[in-house]
Amino acid sequence: MTSLRRSPEKVRLPLGFSFSAVAAGIKVSGRPDLALAEAAKGAAAAALFTQNRVVAAPVEVGRASLLSSRYRVRAVLVNSGNANCATGRAGIHACQQVCRETATALGSLADEIFPSSTGIIGVPLAAEKITVQLPKLIATRSASRRGILAFAHAIMTTDTRAKIASRRFSVRDDDVTVLGIAKGAGMIHPQLATMLVYLFTDIRASAAELRPLLREACDSSLNCMSIDGDTSTNDTVLLLASGASGVRLRDAGSQKKFAVALNTVCQSLAQQIISDGEGVQHVIRLVVEQASSREEALLVARTIAHSMLVKTAWAGADPNWGRILAAVGRSGAPVDPGRVHIFIGKQKVCRNGVACPFNERQAHHALGQPVCDIRVQLGRGRYAVRFLTTDLTAEYVRINADYST
Amino acid sequence: MTSLRRSPEKVRLPLGFSFSAVAAGIKVSGRPDLALAEAAKGAAAAALFTQNRVVAAPVEVGRASLLSSRYRVRAVLVNSGNANCATGRAGIHACQQVCRETATALGSLADEIFPSSTGIIGVPLAAEKITVQLPKLIATRSASRRGILAFAHAIMTTDTRAKIASRRFSVRDDDVTVLGIAKGAGMIHPQLATMLVYLFTDIRASAAELRPLLREACDSSLNCMSIDGDTSTNDTVLLLASGASGVRLRDAGSQKKFAVALNTVCQSLAQQIISDGEGVQHVIRLVVEQASSREEALLVARTIAHSMLVKTAWAGADPNWGRILAAVGRSGAPVDPGRVHIFIGKQKVCRNGVACPFNERQAHHALGQPVCDIRVQLGRGRYAVRFLTTDLTAEYVRINADYST
Repeated sequence: MTSLRRSPEKVRLPLGFSFSAVAAGIKVSGRPDLALAEAAKGAAAAALFTQNRVVAAPVEVGRASLLSSRYRVRAVLVNSGNANCATGRAGIHACQQVCRETATALGSLADEIFPSSTGIIGVPLAAEKITVQLPKLIATRSASRRGILAFAHAIMTTDTRAKIASRRFSVRDDDVTVLGIAKGAGMIHPQLATMLVYLFTDIRASAAELRPLLREACDSSLNCMSIDGDTSTNDTVLLLASGASGVRLRDAGSQKKFAVALNTVCQSLAQQIISDGEGVQHVIRLVVEQASSREEALLVARTIAHSMLVKTAWAGADPNWGRILAAVGRSGAPVDPGRVHIFIGKQKVCRNGVACPFNERQAHHALGQPVCDIRVQLGRGRYAVRFLTTDLTAEYVRINADYST
Repeated sequence: MTSLRRSPEKVRLPLGFSFSAVAAGIKVSGRPDLALAEAAKGAAAAALFTQNRVVAAPVEVGRASLLSSRYRVRAVLVNSGNANCATGRAGIHACQQVCRETATALGSLADEIFPSSTGIIGVPLAAEKITVQLPKLIATRSASRRGILAFAHAIMTTDTRAKIASRRFSVRDDDVTVLGIAKGAGMIHPQLATMLVYLFTDIRASAAELRPLLREACDSSLNCMSIDGDTSTNDTVLLLASGASGVRLRDAGSQKKFAVALNTVCQSLAQQIISDGEGVQHVIRLVVEQASSREEALLVARTIAHSMLVKTAWAGADPNWGRILAAVGRSGAPVDPGRVHIFIGKQKVCRNGVACPFNERQAHHALGQPVCDIRVQLGRGRYAVRFLTTDLTAEYVRINADYST
């Protein structure tokens, strides 16, 4: 990977899905805010949800629907501009009503409609704004690059660009495609939050086969990044497999290729989300290694990535390894500081917990790049984690503190 | 408490202590950076240290000295401008040398000299800058308000004002005084960190008697505040009792009055530290109540107080309770969102986890004040915690990202 700020990749369409979007007037801006992805013959699903105990209505409804449909999904319906969170029973009812009417219009069951919302928290969602648009939304769907782009743009809140990644591989003579569409952990605007990730593939697989692959792909990508450490109430990752390629996941050689494609797509989306984080000037590729377990490496990585002092130092391209060492020390991991090494870019800046001579100008320069590598060795074991994070800029504060009565 | 931004209180001098400060050239600015507090006849001590596993040399040396002296302290020697942290064995040796030479000059034992350092991390401390100043430092010490102010100013790093609090009470006809001097969790300048708090009293008490009282006083004050959640490597709270008042802690009526005075002084210092936090525009007095344990209340309070999204909303005086609710949800406490109430100022803004009607303009106004009360009820039990915290401003970022090669 040469840069995280590269231009969008070529978009590949998986068979069995069509996409559309409209402007339903939920966003004040009037921009597209309602998106549909349909699998005409249905798809097997696997999903991951926010760990937050406060969850939005669509997360509650979607989770229940997947259980009752036995992980069968006919369509995904996403609105932006309103998170339908902290909206009580009325929010649940609004979400259920939208799913019911979408199901009727498509001729499916309500629990096969997977709902998502992103936007402001605590504001009632007007279901009729959505339901009145369903005929148009359904009529305009298409299995095309245009449809995918429309979907990707309509789920954006304060993202500055659409986030799409896709990979294609062959098993014997058949192509299999994995397409991912995401919206950022932008959390840019007051009361806006949420990372939404949709993964579409035309491989044929059961929900049970998909689940461990989705978890594995996310563990090393979407679960290994942080902009501000705030877990949204709506975070959702959904993987749908239409089976339309004819290739079965359990075919020889298929699973490994699929796992690689899925991982690659998730990695790409994670990078796109991070580099479009609010106010981000520098993306940090943090590696914590020599931990005694993966959990320990993650604990240390998260503490570093959430430290305001560390993140502000990064904003100033300040090679201030003392703040990183202090974050390691308070992480809760039983680290012996005397065994810790820290690298900025290619230089070792801290040896055995103590200052070591380094070229400060060079370290400052490395941190001044759009992407910088930082490596922390704990001297405890053989586990490592790669973690994507960002600096904390005055612009982040301005964006998130911007409030007008 | 009407305001956190009041002018300094009257300073009361406890008997048995003298104070002084000089400029030793450790701070680049040339301002006073070496402070001494001496108990001519010695004092009983209790101390609390940072929980960070990365600890500065003076914390290691001071902790060991208290053990070997059986919590007897003759003098406290503090330098600002250099934290003597991540400086390896050379840092330990420098600290020990300073203590030895101070002891020689005062005619005491090295382990009766309690050392502290605050300032930049990872830079070797030149012991001779300190030792060469010892004669002047010792010669100029005085049991006076002037001495106290000199001490309080010399331990400052990027604090904008000295932090002093004192209380006096009587037991029968004898006065007992508790004096506290602190420097802030400023962490303002790159690589600067540390909260240092020194408490001086003339009550007569053993170290064993002092310890639980110090812990109790800190638990509800200095341990219940956070500016940015970064735990320093040098944090130290030291309580010294000279016994010069003649009043014994175990005298009837004495202990309760002393505990109140000590608590009040610690509360005041906590408020002074918070309101002088870097870039702070708004101080938030956060109450988390109806928790099932004090630890649970603290867990929720800390998660709220460390949330960048919550803190930036406060910077904009944005009554965005959804971010507070989301922080409660990800705190790890097994909270049922449907039982959570949130108050901003005097208004309830969230009832049972759902929006409730409130005067938004009034809530915005309350948050726009220098001090605002926010209350979160968890609906789980009868434990509560009061927590002092701050907003996160663009100024905080500017201060901490300011780096010049």
